[in-house]
Amino acid sequence: MFRAAVVGATGYTGFELLRLLASHGGVALGALTSETYAGKEAGEVFPALASVVRGKFQKFEPSLCEGMDLVFCCLPHRVAMTSVPDLLERGARVVDFSADFRLQDLSVYEAWYKTSHACPERVSQAVYGLPELHRERIRKARLVANPGCYPTGAIVALYPLLKSRLIRPSSIVIDAKSGVSGAGRKADLELQFCEVNERFRAYGVATHRHTPEIEQELSAAAGGPVRVSFTPHLVPMTRGILSTIYADAQPGATAGRARQALRDFYDGEPFIRFMPEGAFPDVSQVAGSNFLDIGLTLDERTGRYVLVTAIDNLVKGASGAAVQNMNLMLGLPETQGLAHPGFWM
Amino acid sequence: MFRAAVVGATGYTGFELLRLLASHGGVALGALTSETYAGKEAGEVFPALASVVRGKFQKFEPSLCEGMDLVFCCLPHRVAMTSVPDLLERGARVVDFSADFRLQDLSVYEAWYKTSHACPERVSQAVYGLPELHRERIRKARLVANPGCYPTGAIVALYPLLKSRLIRPSSIVIDAKSGVSGAGRKADLELQFCEVNERFRAYGVATHRHTPEIEQELSAAAGGPVRVSFTPHLVPMTRGILSTIYADAQPGATAGRARQALRDFYDGEPFIRFMPEGAFPDVSQVAGSNFLDIGLTLDERTGRYVLVTAIDNLVKGASGAAVQNMNLMLGLPETQGLAHPGFWM
Amino acid sequence: MFRAAVVGATGYTGFELLRLLASHGGVALGALTSETYAGKEAGEVFPALASVVRGKFQKFEPSLCEGMDLVFCCLPHRVAMTSVPDLLERGARVVDFSADFRLQDLSVYEAWYKTSHACPERVSQAVYGLPELHRERIRKARLVANPGCYPTGAIVALYPLLKSRLIRPSSIVIDAKSGVSGAGRKADLELQFCEVNERFRAYGVATHRHTPEIEQELSAAAGGPVRVSFTPHLVPMTRGILSTIYADAQPGATAGRARQALRDFYDGEPFIRFMPEGAFPDVSQVAGSNFLDIGLTLDERTGRYVLVTAIDNLVKGASGAAVQNMNLMLGLPETQGLAHPGFWM
Amino acid sequence: MFRAAVVGATGYTGFELLRLLASHGGVALGALTSETYAGKEAGEVFPALASVVRGKFQKFEPSLCEGMDLVFCCLPHRVAMTSVPDLLERGARVVDFSADFRLQDLSVYEAWYKTSHACPERVSQAVYGLPELHRERIRKARLVANPGCYPTGAIVALYPLLKSRLIRPSSIVIDAKSGVSGAGRKADLELQFCEVNERFRAYGVATHRHTPEIEQELSAAAGGPVRVSFTPHLVPMTRGILSTIYADAQPGATAGRARQALRDFYDGEPFIRFMPEGAFPDVSQVAGSNFLDIGLTLDERTGRYVLVTAIDNLVKGASGAAVQNMNLMLGLPETQGLAHPGFWM
Repeated sequence: MFRAAVVGATGYTGFELLRLLASHGGVALGALTSETYAGKEAGEVFPALASVVRGKFQKFEPSLCEGMDLVFCCLPHRVAMTSVPDLLERGARVVDFSADFRLQDLSVYEAWYKTSHACPERVSQAVYGLPELHRERIRKARLVANPGCYPTGAIVALYPLLKSRLIRPSSIVIDAKSGVSGAGRKADLELQFCEVNERFRAYGVATHRHTPEIEQELSAAAGGPVRVSFTPHLVPMTRGILSTIYADAQPGATAGRARQALRDFYDGEPFIRFMPEGAFPDVSQVAGSNFLDIGLTLDERTGRYVLVTAIDNLVKGASGAAVQNMNLMLGLPETQGLAHPGFWM
Repeated sequence: MFRAAVVGATGYTGFELLRLLASHGGVALGALTSETYAGKEAGEVFPALASVVRGKFQKFEPSLCEGMDLVFCCLPHRVAMTSVPDLLERGARVVDFSADFRLQDLSVYEAWYKTSHACPERVSQAVYGLPELHRERIRKARLVANPGCYPTGAIVALYPLLKSRLIRPSSIVIDAKSGVSGAGRKADLELQFCEVNERFRAYGVATHRHTPEIEQELSAAAGGPVRVSFTPHLVPMTRGILSTIYADAQPGATAGRARQALRDFYDGEPFIRFMPEGAFPDVSQVAGSNFLDIGLTLDERTGRYVLVTAIDNLVKGASGAAVQNMNLMLGLPETQGLAHPGFWM
Repeated sequence: MFRAAVVGATGYTGFELLRLLASHGGVALGALTSETYAGKEAGEVFPALASVVRGKFQKFEPSLCEGMDLVFCCLPHRVAMTSVPDLLERGARVVDFSADFRLQDLSVYEAWYKTSHACPERVSQAVYGLPELHRERIRKARLVANPGCYPTGAIVALYPLLKSRLIRPSSIVIDAKSGVSGAGRKADLELQFCEVNERFRAYGVATHRHTPEIEQELSAAAGGPVRVSFTPHLVPMTRGILSTIYADAQPGATAGRARQALRDFYDGEPFIRFMPEGAFPDVSQVAGSNFLDIGLTLDERTGRYVLVTAIDNLVKGASGAAVQNMNLMLGLPETQGLAHPGFWM
Repeated sequence: MFRAAVVGATGYTGFELLRLLASHGGVALGALTSETYAGKEAGEVFPALASVVRGKFQKFEPSLCEGMDLVFCCLPHRVAMTSVPDLLERGARVVDFSADFRLQDLSVYEAWYKTSHACPERVSQAVYGLPELHRERIRKARLVANPGCYPTGAIVALYPLLKSRLIRPSSIVIDAKSGVSGAGRKADLELQFCEVNERFRAYGVATHRHTPEIEQELSAAAGGPVRVSFTPHLVPMTRGILSTIYADAQPGATAGRARQALRDFYDGEPFIRFMPEGAFPDVSQVAGSNFLDIGLTLDERTGRYVLVTAIDNLVKGASGAAVQNMNLMLGLPETQGLAHPGFWM
């Protein structure tokens, strides 16, 4: 039995990790840390976990993670980069949930996150934790930068199409819609129930920080710089991200060729599912699960592909991906603890 | 006091008409028709209206509308075109909620609605009921084709930009998100609460019938055929449509010029509101009201405009627009019965 | 045209007041105060009100209310009792939204609110602002204590039954369910969307502060002390309170006699509506309106009455009641600005 | 590996069974039946199950269940009683989800279900499937009548208190609130999203058919006939039942004694959890799980106990209980496939 620690365990991604690990079977929970709830039992903070997950939250100090096989670091951006190096030095492998180790180009990081990087030397060692693209490197990595929730839904759809030269790189529009849990667990008037319920809005229009992350991976696919229009929206629901993606078809590109390019690229992938022709995914069918569902059409009238992907932002978009990465890093079966279907409703 | 009839009054747009007319002050309700609820009191079918709206629903026959100054016809597509001519012949002015008289090109109608038109001669007499574009013609019209809910949010944003040659006509993507009331009031498993709640999905991808309606008006603006990518989505909320619209800026076009083009075009319009720079509307701020709110930015990184509009699909997207059209047709103040703010939450 | 001020105008009840007053026609908005948003336009803080309600929020000082015909005081409990006296001394009539002037027995106030009262002499002058019980005293009052949202739904149902000796006073159970807006507008983790959505819970079990308010009015009806079991619950919706009320029938009491007692007592009341026999209200049919709907049955198997009432907690449960009180205090028609139906959905 | 069939597998309880059985590990799915979706793959009807649950739905005929170790019968009331006998005769053990075998007193069944019973001889052989009360009999049963969703939440709280003579049997009020999935999966205007969302209502007031089921079990506890007031309500959420239960304390009864009676009675039960003193459960903490959480207080002011229980109506209230019963009937560990925590949000 491996031992894992969760640092910053009382946010939504932390809860989701505890929930997934409770049924995993291959790892035991070592330390759980929380600044706000230090001293409390897991089941006291999250009554859903009562009598299932045992353990007390402690204030974070790196020494708690000594001897762990793996540490999930759920600290916020800018904080993570000051703590992760310490964890690595104590010998743990780390799956980091923040953006701090995702962007290989430090000037891009600093432009979008408005801060200089505290630990540039670790960035180049980090592997971007999308197993569908970087599985072999993840297996060997000591530090995995777990992808942002939005990038996963966008990159998986577009990567094979760019690589196959089926779409025009400058034409990409990603219109994404997320459940509210993506905003994190915090007291914030804008996230109050009455300020979200029966409401729908765009935010971070043309300025959201997941943009450079998407562009980094898509540029690799295209073999040259790709810039995308990315607009996130807030949906009055708890979980899920639906991404509606538009891109001009290159001359000669067809619906069938795009569908084939995706199927070929993701052949054998355990968590990528394709919708039947004419059908498109919805977020409820992946809720609670690690699946990413894809639908695709080519609008012949406009010559534009429309792709739709759905993930659970807390699972495939965060904690499920982290468990998948952990499985790879520890040599466990990749689907362990992640094989269940979603709860749908 | 004018007299108005509502034909097909027990759907959501019918209810909304009754609600708005109850506080209008300038028109009395004549006949109310309903096939399903014939014989019942308004307040029995809609307890919200009890003790406010009085009157019994009757089965529709055209003679009920005799002597009415105006008839709101809320019958479905294909049914409306067989009933509206009768109403017109009895001397009533008609605001028709269906799509049957919106598309001037009959071949387009027949291609999208998969039926031949029963009454082509009335189509050319009908005026597309968007007062911001066709106010003077609406004043004199005997038959107004009330716009579809999605087209209003898209056309209002794009018309001035196309007219001012600020955007590339072939680059338009309209990603729209609607509350569930837009699907109508009916027993349908797909609209069951549990099949919509905590769910988000696209539908009618590249095939939705509001597409040609949008294209008709935008083509007029552009002075040549415009084709758009239009994708509607279903949001787990009752009211509202948010449209996120993407279009490539023409060389030399700026955010400021686009903003100015919109302000100039809609100068003095009572129901068009502009968001401050950097702010974007959300549907809750127009809920229950006849306002259409617009926000705009130019993403300098991609050279693409992003516009966001919000309406209440049942008000500015249906029954409020119909009352606005009625006011124009009857010579009443255009804002009568529509001046109240939304209920926000 | 009368002039009214709203003190503490940027909570949910403040918004609702502004919304209702915007269509009232008999009062103009004088001062609007807000500590958080001082200096901002109403339409900036509440985009729903943009271009409808004009005026800037100012930091509260009593002198702002000088010359006002009426002041709505939406300050919190304990704060109100230190500000209201000042307002009264400047000559304004006051409708106070807090609990500070509702409880005539100061020891009861101090026991439930855990504080001594700063201004006991004003308490005895205050009138409990339930027009259905105290209309004539409200007309003449200088200070009206606007009722709590829960008490309105409970008292209106039970008062006539206790007065008519149809129910056993010691048997009353009030199981109430409220939309989230009742918790007020504030950043609070417990009210975060994800902490409320898809969730249902009781709170304040056997300890909620609206209990003594209900008991005060019901004791007057019964002519002796009444104690009730009152349990509020939080419903994942924005507006509305449904109260399900249980009370043992006295020997000889029937469904018909209870129904008649209610009808007699509320004969001519403009905002009390009775459901047909066998039907019970739901909150959506009163949403946005000042109506209170009542349904009733006698469960012959158990000898227990079951009554259900529905109100919009922000309208009849707060700001609508306040406008109704204002109308009475200023000699305006009681229903002015409140005659519209709810928005239902 | 045992083999199980699911008859009527495409309702919400059917889906939930498939979801739970997919991770169970001890039973394989034999036949799946559905009248509506016969011929379709499980993953086609429920995309959430795609690539996890394999198998086609078939039209029901009893022979499909031949050779099964256990059949879950999810047919509706009145239909089940004509099919279950056939299944039993073919040698299968049956967990029946309908009400047809729950009520031992046939005259009670016939009075509440307005039909004569087609198969009275099987009723007396059926065991009411609440393991916390009837575990040993369930182990040996060939036919288990799976409890209704509401009764579980009510009976578990009240049974030990009645048995210990801590409450007055005639004073029981059960005010229950359910998510919409409890109404089943069907096209019904009353269950349309817009007719449920932002709405809260009581239904079946004093007439709901779960009443006699609750009374049957509670009468056994009390050793004499118990009648209860039971009012169900519809909450705008998908899953969960919260029951708020009121009962007069007998002289000498205390909060501590009641808490102890519950703890003693449910000592060692794997799925019953007690809330800390002063805390009450909410439905989100049991969502997706088989737990039933209980909180309790004694309101000293009124001498009335208030108990609150929470379950997921689809799990502990239906399909989870059914799996628990199956485990007992097949000699598997009782918690197999049910040990995971809820998904909370």
